[in-house]
Amino acid sequence: MAKKTGAFKAGTFVVFEGGDESGKTTHARWVATQRNCLFTYEPCADLNLRSLLLGTSNSDLSDRTEALLFAADRAQHVQNIIRPTLELGQDVVCDRYIGSSLAYQSYGRGLNLKEVFRLSEFATDGLLPDLVLLMHIPYETYLERLQASQLDLTRFDQETADFHRRVIDGYLKLAEADPSRWVVIDGTLPPDTVRQAVAAVLEEKLGWQL
Amino acid sequence: MAKKTGAFKAGTFVVFEGGDESGKTTHARWVATQRNCLFTYEPCADLNLRSLLLGTSNSDLSDRTEALLFAADRAQHVQNIIRPTLELGQDVVCDRYIGSSLAYQSYGRGLNLKEVFRLSEFATDGLLPDLVLLMHIPYETYLERLQASQLDLTRFDQETADFHRRVIDGYLKLAEADPSRWVVIDGTLPPDTVRQAVAAVLEEKLGWQL
Repeated sequence: MAKKTGAFKAGTFVVFEGGDESGKTTHARWVATQRNCLFTYEPCADLNLRSLLLGTSNSDLSDRTEALLFAADRAQHVQNIIRPTLELGQDVVCDRYIGSSLAYQSYGRGLNLKEVFRLSEFATDGLLPDLVLLMHIPYETYLERLQASQLDLTRFDQETADFHRRVIDGYLKLAEADPSRWVVIDGTLPPDTVRQAVAAVLEEKLGWQL
Repeated sequence: MAKKTGAFKAGTFVVFEGGDESGKTTHARWVATQRNCLFTYEPCADLNLRSLLLGTSNSDLSDRTEALLFAADRAQHVQNIIRPTLELGQDVVCDRYIGSSLAYQSYGRGLNLKEVFRLSEFATDGLLPDLVLLMHIPYETYLERLQASQLDLTRFDQETADFHRRVIDGYLKLAEADPSRWVVIDGTLPPDTVRQAVAAVLEEKLGWQL
């Protein structure tokens, strides 16, 4: 589905994917700290689109607008932060990337998968992650954790159960379709167990000792 | 290059294209007033991206980010304003549309023409204008008028002469490639003469009596 970028890339690019409340941010930060490498996330800080994309007051954003804004954010993130860091030979751990667009805007919103992928391919000039760790939790776990959470709700938290189930199933389909790049981790397990699983995957796939 | 949208569309969709200072806004507004139909423009008011896209302080916007943000703005504009108006049977006159992305982001910035077109095709779900009037002025005329202008400079006004010449030449190539949809009007002529030329084109192509 994707071409590899031709550009020189010395660092390793690891992405954590999954729904909100899956623990991906916590574990991504832990990996970056252990590895002493860059932790970053999307939507990124650079373009200041987070409130437009995640704020609950923007309910009239069209699905295509949403997909294009996430891609615009990614283009800026790759050009200004991810690619320069990789080119310096440093590793990058990123919380959400192309997989999020495919899961939310295609499986979730119903936009064509190939068209949504093309937006990210254009945005990133073909930069794919070396490894994607999918933190998988079922909808019921998401809901339980959301109710206990202190964080502000986003536009996505306000979506229907059906929407969230399509996103969760979509993520599993993405992992199934690209098993050399994606690894699924059971995010319902206790945090220490998840952490051990993450460390084991990174050692097996990349030789990282955390 | 493009598919026609399958959606019902009763109104007629006319677009004015061209560089800044070409007179397109003035003449587009005049046509909409005479025709008593909707006048609109891009970047549109809906998403509040104008300052991000046009402001002179955003000089580190990557070319791909810029192209995706203009497409995001267009997606919102089409879904919330242009398509609903056309579907009500009302005509729409728009100041800038897909042609601007092709001229500025592809010919100007050097991004691939087909890729930039695909962003707009995705954004608009294939909605093409019925007629495009290109107000053509050479670079020297743009510069003379810019120096006399009272308006704030945009990021694009700060571009090099080469950039502006590529945009101007790009517009002419777009018109040449699609002569059934595009008409070139000499924007260096006196305003009354340009107005007569615009009226003549609209009568010949659409049967409009202004």
